[in-house]
Amino acid sequence: MTFEEMWRDLAPIGRSGSSGGYFRQPWDSAEEELRAWFAEQAAARGLTLQTDAMGNQVAWWRPEPVPGRVEILGVLTGSHLDSVLDGGAYDGPLGVVSALAAIDLLRERGVEPGRAVGVGVFREEEGSRFGLACLGSRLASGSVAWSDVEGLRDRNGVALGDVTAAPDAGAGGVLAEVGCFVELHVEQGRALVDRDAPVGLASGIWPHGRYRFDFAGRADHAGTTRMEDRADPMLTYAMTALAANKQARLSGQRATFGRLEVAPGSTNAVPSRVSAWLDARADSDASLEALVAAIEKQASERADRDGTTMELTAESVSGAVEFSKDLTDRIRAHSAWPVLPTQAGHDAGILAAAGHPSAMLFVRNPTGVSHSPDEHAEMADCIAGVEALADALSELV
Amino acid sequence: MTFEEMWRDLAPIGRSGSSGGYFRQPWDSAEEELRAWFAEQAAARGLTLQTDAMGNQVAWWRPEPVPGRVEILGVLTGSHLDSVLDGGAYDGPLGVVSALAAIDLLRERGVEPGRAVGVGVFREEEGSRFGLACLGSRLASGSVAWSDVEGLRDRNGVALGDVTAAPDAGAGGVLAEVGCFVELHVEQGRALVDRDAPVGLASGIWPHGRYRFDFAGRADHAGTTRMEDRADPMLTYAMTALAANKQARLSGQRATFGRLEVAPGSTNAVPSRVSAWLDARADSDASLEALVAAIEKQASERADRDGTTMELTAESVSGAVEFSKDLTDRIRAHSAWPVLPTQAGHDAGILAAAGHPSAMLFVRNPTGVSHSPDEHAEMADCIAGVEALADALSELV
Repeated sequence: MTFEEMWRDLAPIGRSGSSGGYFRQPWDSAEEELRAWFAEQAAARGLTLQTDAMGNQVAWWRPEPVPGRVEILGVLTGSHLDSVLDGGAYDGPLGVVSALAAIDLLRERGVEPGRAVGVGVFREEEGSRFGLACLGSRLASGSVAWSDVEGLRDRNGVALGDVTAAPDAGAGGVLAEVGCFVELHVEQGRALVDRDAPVGLASGIWPHGRYRFDFAGRADHAGTTRMEDRADPMLTYAMTALAANKQARLSGQRATFGRLEVAPGSTNAVPSRVSAWLDARADSDASLEALVAAIEKQASERADRDGTTMELTAESVSGAVEFSKDLTDRIRAHSAWPVLPTQAGHDAGILAAAGHPSAMLFVRNPTGVSHSPDEHAEMADCIAGVEALADALSELV
Repeated sequence: MTFEEMWRDLAPIGRSGSSGGYFRQPWDSAEEELRAWFAEQAAARGLTLQTDAMGNQVAWWRPEPVPGRVEILGVLTGSHLDSVLDGGAYDGPLGVVSALAAIDLLRERGVEPGRAVGVGVFREEEGSRFGLACLGSRLASGSVAWSDVEGLRDRNGVALGDVTAAPDAGAGGVLAEVGCFVELHVEQGRALVDRDAPVGLASGIWPHGRYRFDFAGRADHAGTTRMEDRADPMLTYAMTALAANKQARLSGQRATFGRLEVAPGSTNAVPSRVSAWLDARADSDASLEALVAAIEKQASERADRDGTTMELTAESVSGAVEFSKDLTDRIRAHSAWPVLPTQAGHDAGILAAAGHPSAMLFVRNPTGVSHSPDEHAEMADCIAGVEALADALSELV
């Protein structure tokens, strides 16, 4: 099955007829269908499927044993199949489908690997259901403890521990045989457009975090309560959203409020509480800290003026990630792909931090738009990505 | 059963253990329980219960026919039993319980009415489920056509037409025998505290409306999209919320954003759409129009700067209501209750506009807080309210 055929297979799964975007939340039917499809593709290629207790998958291409050869740990590639709410087709699946196609290409070229090659599918990479991004790779690598996350709840109040058991992060886990990791991903900005290159390599990942701002005031009647008698947390939130934008803009960093909860949520009541999630990213750990501190300060000052309170909780913060220079240099030896930083978290960042030398390949995105139904990559660039990944794997096996 | 006993009966129904507020949405179990309780109270008093197809109720105390007497239309009192989300105990139920207690008091006093006296319970007064306030009285009075509202949907997508049939607004309806209407209600501001009076009368209701602002932009990755490349509708909304507050404050009017929907609602995605509901009220029809126009102008200018779009829909607008001066003067003849305007919509406003001479009594609210778990009235003031209502009814029957 060619890349194009596989891509056509996936196109309708979890797609919204109205927006054209994807709803592929983990442990929901669309995502389960994608996982079943992956298992079929692995079987069709004679790959050995390994699955852990939370459903992280690795399909292994294991070389014939050679007497006397020292076995070294395998090379992992792949990505994820889940999406953000109403997301694009490429973020995640492009890396998985390209990995399968790269194995097909290596076999066509007659490559006989000297070490195992695995295609991985990490679960809940987007954190769109339980709020913690890269959940599958964090648990599989032991970067987060099960006891710290099993109580995470989705929007319907269902706990992670209710939908899955703890995956093994040790000798029985999907990373036990993994040495290094190469993840291919659609680019989520326009750096490759600017550089006129179909493929690029990542130097590292900006530090980033999710922070919950809880603004509390006093519910009141929207008609009878005079403006000056109110303690309206919506105002404190609104000023904080504008302040976050301004701070990020001034410093060349990123700050976004994309999720909000308002209580009681009635048109005719002043809200008693607004909870808002800040996604913040910056080019160094220090500048991320400074960005969040500046937003917090403005929020807190406005809360004083509004008669409301503000509480800030860092739900998850990931430090800066440097990808393996050695790995990246070896991959670049074949071609002069440009090297760029990325502002997006990825499973490769988690594995790198957990001690697996990692590298990332990006495929050009003509608009830079991602996490959106409009996310796109040209087919010719996708094919260039498959070839680049096959070249990288050739170098490493 | 005394006022206090009735009040104790109602206290636990639909009460949230965590907030202490009430969730009494129409066609939900708590509200159905309240309606059953009302039917029992009517039966215990020998009142004849009339119910229309959507569940508006009137319990009638009908005088013995007197040969030769010209029958005139009845006097209606009562209010509603539903609440906003996480609302208070008094808004609505105080008027219903006081009406039952006032009938008890009239009977103790030996009053024999010369016309029918009804205690009404109008359904979905708050609009907390289908978004249109005073839905029951609007339909029962023919102020709104069934065909215009049967398609209204609640947050779960259930249509009004799926939960109820159309009530009769004519000769078979609950208002067919109604001449005038006197509604007692907890005050939702502090005017009676300022005037040191336990009870007051309403002169009229400010014009008010609900307006939906739909802000649309472009979903994007929260990390990789540069701030200057975004079209983020959250920013347009945030500025609009601050502008609404400022405009209302400057002009002595009211503007509130208490309900919001964000799509896709992911922490790590720039939103594609923010829908926000504005509740606006002003002291005249012209100043309401000017207030909304000023907010719309600022929203639209900001949308231009943000690269987003803004669409404004007036979901419901109620013009200024003047209560019956004749009725109010007759009620005031017994006592010098202060007369004040109110900024809150009420069923009495709907009935007044539909041609039923109407008046309203308010009971003092020590904090002025309403639509909130903290809404309160002292028992002594409630009893004073019952007496005032009984006095008013004596005058009118």
